[in-house]
Amino acid sequence: MINFETAPEHYRHWKLEIDGARATLSMDVQEDATLADGYKLKLNSYDLGVDIELADAVQRLRFEHPEVKVVTITSLKPRIFCAGANIYMLGTSAHAFKVNFCKFTNETRCTIEDASHHSGQRYIAALNGTASGGGYELAIACDEIYLVDDGNSAVSLPEVPLLGVLPGTGGLTRLVDKRKVRRDRADVFSTLAEGLKGKRAKEWGLIDDYFPTTKFQDAIAARVRAIIETDGPTDESQGIKLNPLQVEATANGREYKYVHLRLNREKRYADLTVRAPEANLPTDPAEIQKLGDAYWPLQVYRELDDALLHLRINELEIGLVCLHTVGEIENVLAVDTTLAAHRDHWLIREIILHMARVLRRLDLTAKSLFAIIEPGSCFAGNLLELALASDRVYMLDDAAERIEIAASRLNAGALPMGNGLTRLESRFLAHPEQVTTVLEYQGRFDTKAADEAGLITVAPDSLDWEDEIRLAIEERNSLSPDALTGMEASLRFAGPETLDTKIYGRLTAWQNWIFQRPNAVGEHGALTNYGKPTQPKFDYRRT
Amino acid sequence: MINFETAPEHYRHWKLEIDGARATLSMDVQEDATLADGYKLKLNSYDLGVDIELADAVQRLRFEHPEVKVVTITSLKPRIFCAGANIYMLGTSAHAFKVNFCKFTNETRCTIEDASHHSGQRYIAALNGTASGGGYELAIACDEIYLVDDGNSAVSLPEVPLLGVLPGTGGLTRLVDKRKVRRDRADVFSTLAEGLKGKRAKEWGLIDDYFPTTKFQDAIAARVRAIIETDGPTDESQGIKLNPLQVEATANGREYKYVHLRLNREKRYADLTVRAPEANLPTDPAEIQKLGDAYWPLQVYRELDDALLHLRINELEIGLVCLHTVGEIENVLAVDTTLAAHRDHWLIREIILHMARVLRRLDLTAKSLFAIIEPGSCFAGNLLELALASDRVYMLDDAAERIEIAASRLNAGALPMGNGLTRLESRFLAHPEQVTTVLEYQGRFDTKAADEAGLITVAPDSLDWEDEIRLAIEERNSLSPDALTGMEASLRFAGPETLDTKIYGRLTAWQNWIFQRPNAVGEHGALTNYGKPTQPKFDYRRT
Repeated sequence: MINFETAPEHYRHWKLEIDGARATLSMDVQEDATLADGYKLKLNSYDLGVDIELADAVQRLRFEHPEVKVVTITSLKPRIFCAGANIYMLGTSAHAFKVNFCKFTNETRCTIEDASHHSGQRYIAALNGTASGGGYELAIACDEIYLVDDGNSAVSLPEVPLLGVLPGTGGLTRLVDKRKVRRDRADVFSTLAEGLKGKRAKEWGLIDDYFPTTKFQDAIAARVRAIIETDGPTDESQGIKLNPLQVEATANGREYKYVHLRLNREKRYADLTVRAPEANLPTDPAEIQKLGDAYWPLQVYRELDDALLHLRINELEIGLVCLHTVGEIENVLAVDTTLAAHRDHWLIREIILHMARVLRRLDLTAKSLFAIIEPGSCFAGNLLELALASDRVYMLDDAAERIEIAASRLNAGALPMGNGLTRLESRFLAHPEQVTTVLEYQGRFDTKAADEAGLITVAPDSLDWEDEIRLAIEERNSLSPDALTGMEASLRFAGPETLDTKIYGRLTAWQNWIFQRPNAVGEHGALTNYGKPTQPKFDYRRT
Repeated sequence: MINFETAPEHYRHWKLEIDGARATLSMDVQEDATLADGYKLKLNSYDLGVDIELADAVQRLRFEHPEVKVVTITSLKPRIFCAGANIYMLGTSAHAFKVNFCKFTNETRCTIEDASHHSGQRYIAALNGTASGGGYELAIACDEIYLVDDGNSAVSLPEVPLLGVLPGTGGLTRLVDKRKVRRDRADVFSTLAEGLKGKRAKEWGLIDDYFPTTKFQDAIAARVRAIIETDGPTDESQGIKLNPLQVEATANGREYKYVHLRLNREKRYADLTVRAPEANLPTDPAEIQKLGDAYWPLQVYRELDDALLHLRINELEIGLVCLHTVGEIENVLAVDTTLAAHRDHWLIREIILHMARVLRRLDLTAKSLFAIIEPGSCFAGNLLELALASDRVYMLDDAAERIEIAASRLNAGALPMGNGLTRLESRFLAHPEQVTTVLEYQGRFDTKAADEAGLITVAPDSLDWEDEIRLAIEERNSLSPDALTGMEASLRFAGPETLDTKIYGRLTAWQNWIFQRPNAVGEHGALTNYGKPTQPKFDYRRT
């Protein structure tokens, strides 16, 4: 079982140093500290374990070190920044693991850009040696890229020429869409195994500048100083500590404080229940800061994030997640009121941004999602997003008991999807006025009102409820899991496309296609044959 | 070998009737008139041969019948409109054929929308019986959908529940992006094998209206009349005839009047040469109309279209197309001047729209494209688009002879890519001002000027030229053809996404992934097992 929790004191592959407004994140991958057998992490190549540490560091920088304005990513190894995802790891991994590995590393790179855009933490890639493949893809997730000019170091994307796969961790998309490299140059660069060095790389827009070895560290330091000066005085906020999550893992589930995961292995679905906060949580940011990571919206979304990652990587057979909530709607709405009122406070801002990221992780989870709204549920405000993220919403229509859902100000833009829209906007593309109707609705929606407002899919009555849910689960899980993945990836992301959705839609879908082609993973495929004395043999028919 | 040329008098599956401003395109698929053995086209299901006729009809309606304002697509079979792509055909086809089949059918549906948006020919789907799968996907490519209410007929997308594949001919994308069906309803609909009938289908936005059997024909006729009346008086233009292309096919190529295709099978590349027009072509639309389909820009792009389709379907081993032009630049520019001056004339408009469609077909061709600019070339104006569509542009830098390229007004917006941008805009995303610089450049670009303007990739001199081209071809064709397809699909379409690019990028890539999954095409896959007494057996691990 792969564990997604870590902390700097446990890092094996990264060193995180803080110096006032500067942070340095240094890669120093330990060859033998792998997640699985059969490969060594040479030349700062990475596996999922390395990326889990990176994701943790990016997250902690935001919560624990809000005073940091610039994060420099560099390497402690001589002449090599990072060689990308470990090829032998890819070559020996099952298809599903490769896909999940790439999704997680993509999400990590998107969180770097999220920190840069929304948390005022700029990322600089200080390439003190060659950055190839995923190493260069990590660099282009940063705001600026500087390469040492030592006559040897280069940036490269050798996936196509050497491995017969794509630079699929955002590489091809960021090349032409973020750095806007001219398409014919992107073509040459992406087919040139050895890559490009300083002068040409800068001319083509692949890096921002290059410096000779003797001046490299000074130049980086000067650039960091310049950014800090431009961005204004250092925010003196003290961070909060992200403590380890407390989770009780059993054979059929995971129990956190606010999140409860129960696996029904036989029927291949999971019940994921999110518990509302207690009443009377603090409403003042200073008090909230004292609560720290125990503050409900931070703790519950950290727990939810961990549960989702667990489901994705460790529970492949679970095809459907039924999302439940339990607790008092007014307590959820009270938290949303506090969050919305103090969005400008750094910690509240970070908490909301984190909630948004976890909800986007939910959108990108390749499991069917059904929201189940029943007596005692609290799909309100931020938790209403769980229902809006679901493929279907079932809400009991009970004559005896009023069941309710509610919107809050947080549904109006604080928690955007990857396509840049709110989940309400994505839902009501045909009737955009319905977004306002829902947001301005006075009070809560009972089942009838929720149905009329278009917020739910089906509203069975008490007589039908159990059978309807049971049948829906059985029917869903009888379908081809691959067709469901492709269908959900299409239906969840209507409307505009962004860099993020292009990476998860177009680029990832092509990479997944290639990842199962014989030309990559067959006996004579390029990925299979990498590093062997044998040459790959291709079926040259173009598809 | 599959031939893409046909004409109404040869149709086996469609009937095209014209009545003033009304056209009716009736599907009546002949079960046994298949392109391959092993399946029967029951229930108006289709194979590529059926779609080639449909594409031909849509094309001819624009050129031969410009007076038509409304095209009604319906069926001559009782109780069935169309059952979609033939499942046994899909089940027995090779992966590459499935992919190419879907690409062509997608392009055909996009041409229907192109005719509606730009040629004033509105399409109505008159579903006189059930439209399932690709049948409903054909309907949602139309502007309006009407379903008979006979207690039995439904619209449905049964691909996911019955076949374990996607409604990949634009279905999922058009559902949520064109008709803006609410995502949870789209989810229910796309997993419901039997689909939905009149009332619910209308309520969910899947159809525009439904009528009882006895009133169906009258209701359609009334709607057609209403559109014709709203759109104003009938355009009295006489159409022009699209005569069969004259092509000499040999073992290693195809020779048209203006297009010459030469296959180098051993090295797996093709030389595709486009010849410039003669001098002194007519400049007056009435004269051009007399020339008809012999007018160079119409003939050359029809020939190019046929050559591209031939390469895609019949020449899978050809991985790279070297694009050449030969002739006088001034003759190409003279044609562009005429076209630009008379863009409002119906025939000139249709000729330009056709050129744009063929160039988009080129963008979507899964072969590497190198433009080769050498003495005698005429990459000017509309033919400059061939270079701008290429993955790389090689231009000889000859001390002895001036080699030139040139822009024209047609490069400024008349020939857009699927992403809505011009190829110049797509090329210069990082430097949008460069688009204006190129368009306003006085005179022609020699090699040095073209290089400085960013229009070419490499400019080898005479000494290096032959080796450079030879090596580039060899290197390109040594790479994994699958990785190249995924790479090119990513790098060619930077910038915004549209309905079209979402269909060809996101949806198609997922469908291609699923098309090779064991859950679809394995021994126990759903596609393999369709119609057999055995049930599919899925590997339920979610990816």
